[in-house]
Amino acid sequence: MVVPISLSNEATCNYDIIIDKLSNLTFENKVAIVTNPTISALHLEKLLSKIKANDIKVITIPDGEEYKTMQTVEDILGELFEFKFDRKSLLIAFGGGVIGDMTGFTASLYQRGIDFIQIPTTLLAQVDASVGGKTGVNNKYGKNLIGAFYQPKAVYIDPSFLSTLPKREFAAGVAEMIKMAVTFDRDFFEFLEKSDLSDEKILAEAIAKSVTIKASVVNQDEKEQGIRAALNYGHTFGHVVENETKYKQYLHGEAVAIGIVMANRLAVKLGFMKLEDEKRVLELLHKYYLPTSYEIKDVESFYEHFFLDKKSSNSKIKFILPMGIGEHIMPSNIEKSTVIDVLTEFGSNV
Amino acid sequence: MVVPISLSNEATCNYDIIIDKLSNLTFENKVAIVTNPTISALHLEKLLSKIKANDIKVITIPDGEEYKTMQTVEDILGELFEFKFDRKSLLIAFGGGVIGDMTGFTASLYQRGIDFIQIPTTLLAQVDASVGGKTGVNNKYGKNLIGAFYQPKAVYIDPSFLSTLPKREFAAGVAEMIKMAVTFDRDFFEFLEKSDLSDEKILAEAIAKSVTIKASVVNQDEKEQGIRAALNYGHTFGHVVENETKYKQYLHGEAVAIGIVMANRLAVKLGFMKLEDEKRVLELLHKYYLPTSYEIKDVESFYEHFFLDKKSSNSKIKFILPMGIGEHIMPSNIEKSTVIDVLTEFGSNV
Repeated sequence: MVVPISLSNEATCNYDIIIDKLSNLTFENKVAIVTNPTISALHLEKLLSKIKANDIKVITIPDGEEYKTMQTVEDILGELFEFKFDRKSLLIAFGGGVIGDMTGFTASLYQRGIDFIQIPTTLLAQVDASVGGKTGVNNKYGKNLIGAFYQPKAVYIDPSFLSTLPKREFAAGVAEMIKMAVTFDRDFFEFLEKSDLSDEKILAEAIAKSVTIKASVVNQDEKEQGIRAALNYGHTFGHVVENETKYKQYLHGEAVAIGIVMANRLAVKLGFMKLEDEKRVLELLHKYYLPTSYEIKDVESFYEHFFLDKKSSNSKIKFILPMGIGEHIMPSNIEKSTVIDVLTEFGSNV
Repeated sequence: MVVPISLSNEATCNYDIIIDKLSNLTFENKVAIVTNPTISALHLEKLLSKIKANDIKVITIPDGEEYKTMQTVEDILGELFEFKFDRKSLLIAFGGGVIGDMTGFTASLYQRGIDFIQIPTTLLAQVDASVGGKTGVNNKYGKNLIGAFYQPKAVYIDPSFLSTLPKREFAAGVAEMIKMAVTFDRDFFEFLEKSDLSDEKILAEAIAKSVTIKASVVNQDEKEQGIRAALNYGHTFGHVVENETKYKQYLHGEAVAIGIVMANRLAVKLGFMKLEDEKRVLELLHKYYLPTSYEIKDVESFYEHFFLDKKSSNSKIKFILPMGIGEHIMPSNIEKSTVIDVLTEFGSNV
């Protein structure tokens, strides 16, 4: 299956997302593959058997969100300079979201921009991170605070890479699928409720559905000036959870699951969501053993954290809240006291 | 005078270059001004008297090409995070080319891109660096090797800032004007030959002419896939000169002047330029006391340097050579031996 992305009239901004067994890929110029030791051990041999190029270098970076830093990007850039990469060379991101975000960011920076392609190997990267051109790194102030909008030349999604994915990471990817279903597509939500994603064909269908939603949103609003912000459902809260736990306790998708539950609580409080819909989402999260509770130690400090999150602007926080299931709303004037109430209730409910 | 830039059909990519006395500027959100101690001492008071904003922070970075590094950009980013800059905040580049390149790059990176405007205070920045959206930093492998194409929201060019510019820096700016005249506009070349740029009105006219040429080229080819490369006339050689002298001996424009003379020698050798035109360019460079000779210690090593320069691709170097005066050519298959001959002759001619 092929999902097209068309960001503008310029041909350079259009690319395809191919969901299929990885085919043979041939490149005329130099290629560098960025990966980590885990993926390398499991799948690098297969990837290398598919790729022909003028010269191939494999750059292995440490595994984990804590290495998603400017320092790692500078290390990759250094290796590319030593390898005498030029403007016609190609970078390949081979791994999960961290690899994809950093490889894309590196491609955007190297000599003011070279081509790159995404070959995501985690469910989270396949359904979300690899599509849409958001690249970047974390720093001490928060997640993805330094980066670029930079689109790949193609995304190759091969679900067979997921056969080796740990269950917890698989579930973290499902959390992003649930995010898209709740905010954009009630049919897809019901599909996720009743389907068994351990069936490879059904899984491929669910991935294609998620990617189609994401592509449609990105095509409408690449730079997140409007509707794309809806993809941050669960993330405004989730980022604070990740930040407070120093990115060590939860996978990104797990923090998003917790954030979804918090956003739903707020939506119920404000009358945008019915209790029974809240319960259905909670049950779907539980179906994949995703975490849904979190102990908030200091509610005020949790609230303060929103203001450094990049999705906020001036002193108003734009929450993305579900309107029932399959639609969303982005109210911009929610009282602090309402949020504090929800957080207090949520945090003591562990 | 206003020169419009239109990079695409998208309104977000269009902006104006205003050549005039700086007018009052009012902004609703936070503003940070990036400058250096030299410019700050001379002109910051004037700038601050013109700007109204929600909150203003001045970020002063060390003066000089050697500080055009990722480290300085990270320092600026850190200050912006501490100042709680958000996506609606505005960066102002107030200084020469180094300030402009780094401020634009910082704006491209902060939360994946915020607005910035250029207020260039050197002739080089006014006629060249501030227009066109090339941003970036140097590293140990060369100049501007890490960066982004990122356009400002506006460029305000006030020639009265040049009253305090040292003569050597003024001349370095003229070198870029001569570059544009030789490659694109014979009338402008003759204007520069016969005019006295110390007259403020004539200077403003020359700046406007340079900016118009630059804007026209950038409008045709933002990402330097074709004609924009012509603006690198003198730079392919000049970058090696700067690199060999560790950016300490020559101002950028001075190295470009030397590079122009080298390129012209090659053009004469290949029959693209007549000896009398070469002499006219040399005389114009001398009129502004620009350096035109350079001792090449190792011709082979000088040649090897081209291959890391980002304008090269694979093993072919694309030289930008004048076709007489007012036109140019970019031959892609010049024999190494021809270049070596020219370099050998040039280097021993000090």
